[in-house]
Amino acid sequence: MSEIEFIRATLDELAVFVRQKYAMRESLSMSAKVDPNDLVTEVDLAVQERIQERIEKAFPRDAIVGEENGMTGFPEGEDTRAWVIDPIDGTQNFVRGLFPAYGISLAFAIGGLPVAGGVAVPGNGQLFHAEKGNGAFRNGERIRVSGVDQISHVRAEVDFAGMVDRVATLRAFGPFVEEVGQVRCHCAAVIGLCSIATGDMDAYVHVTLNPWDYAAGMIIVQEAGGMVTRLDGAAINLFDGGQGVLGSNGKIHNELSALALKGTY
Amino acid sequence: MSEIEFIRATLDELAVFVRQKYAMRESLSMSAKVDPNDLVTEVDLAVQERIQERIEKAFPRDAIVGEENGMTGFPEGEDTRAWVIDPIDGTQNFVRGLFPAYGISLAFAIGGLPVAGGVAVPGNGQLFHAEKGNGAFRNGERIRVSGVDQISHVRAEVDFAGMVDRVATLRAFGPFVEEVGQVRCHCAAVIGLCSIATGDMDAYVHVTLNPWDYAAGMIIVQEAGGMVTRLDGAAINLFDGGQGVLGSNGKIHNELSALALKGTY
Repeated sequence: MSEIEFIRATLDELAVFVRQKYAMRESLSMSAKVDPNDLVTEVDLAVQERIQERIEKAFPRDAIVGEENGMTGFPEGEDTRAWVIDPIDGTQNFVRGLFPAYGISLAFAIGGLPVAGGVAVPGNGQLFHAEKGNGAFRNGERIRVSGVDQISHVRAEVDFAGMVDRVATLRAFGPFVEEVGQVRCHCAAVIGLCSIATGDMDAYVHVTLNPWDYAAGMIIVQEAGGMVTRLDGAAINLFDGGQGVLGSNGKIHNELSALALKGTY
Repeated sequence: MSEIEFIRATLDELAVFVRQKYAMRESLSMSAKVDPNDLVTEVDLAVQERIQERIEKAFPRDAIVGEENGMTGFPEGEDTRAWVIDPIDGTQNFVRGLFPAYGISLAFAIGGLPVAGGVAVPGNGQLFHAEKGNGAFRNGERIRVSGVDQISHVRAEVDFAGMVDRVATLRAFGPFVEEVGQVRCHCAAVIGLCSIATGDMDAYVHVTLNPWDYAAGMIIVQEAGGMVTRLDGAAINLFDGGQGVLGSNGKIHNELSALALKGTY
């Protein structure tokens, strides 16, 4: 089974599991991390564990990096094969929210560059996947970024992050928020990035993401014709320690990058 | 037929129509208002017209205030009966968006105070309604606001508005964004307000809404146990010319109001 086949099969199965848990979400046990809004539920833990078990069986030598497995360092080396898991991106939206804006994210990277990735959005029955060089797909159908090429028409997802990064976000992205056509904030990187890949959004910015938040979304956006870089436009290696992320349809990435760096607030 | 029965029957019917149009949204004709992102589609116009026709037949003497009918003044008088229509609130989300965060809003007011209202969210098959003194409902089931009573736990919808109000919004709501637990922005007042009524969100702020944006959401929040006021906490009359709106679960409305007025940006 190839990596992308593994990703699709795994996400297909877990989307069903997560959808069942979502239906009974009021009875889930959960605990907060440092920020009282940064929750981890039994579903995050169960999904992480199930994906991890599947990887250990199918690809026993590969490294695993996951939001909930407490890894403190990142795998290094140009040829290192690593799986990057976010069991539930958007846990708060999973727990509360009129629209289920959360997803399961699974990526496979070599030397810190995602080469295959998938995102399941159980709430609306969508499954995204992409493999380097082979395009991006939603439920098996090819998707492509929008053609929007004016800042004043850009529909941008600005992620206002947790409380600890809120002030930095406001200061950093004030000018960006002022100038783009529209601002949305679902606070789930997978939703922001997959929305660029489908052409529903044109840009996404966050001051501080972890690799599991965007590894899969990154290859999906790239294969849909868009770009995902650091805020200054620099190429991303998932494990380079950098945290700011700018995704876009690629039509005016430089202008968006300049705006994202303007930060006079 | 009572006003609330009329509202429910009308929204039931139009939700079906709008859902059909949403499925073929890529072929809709549309035009922009002053802001290139402030769109009006053929669906906005058709829904407005259909609702208006139904009102004229059922309640021929009542005033009608709608987003798309070009009314320049508001009905005055303590006993004036008025219907307040937003055919599609969140038109941009209707046209683009991974989640269909738009709704049809219809309220009935006497003397500028909403006494019955309904919101259809065709995208997830939900219909909200409320009548003064009789509670708020989603698909016939009673809904109630959350019990969240700490600013650091508040899940708030901050509407960053159109481009013309974007700078004002940033300046006004900077401190609010800094201090609440979580920030979301769907840019549809009906979604923000109905989310408070269901307990999925705890607060909603906007610097400048028109009566049709919030008339129905206001009575739905109030009947679910929450509050909707001007930003300074003052009581709202739909036609008083005021524009800032703060909705909340009512548990810490004063604190939220103080934050919404802090505005040092």
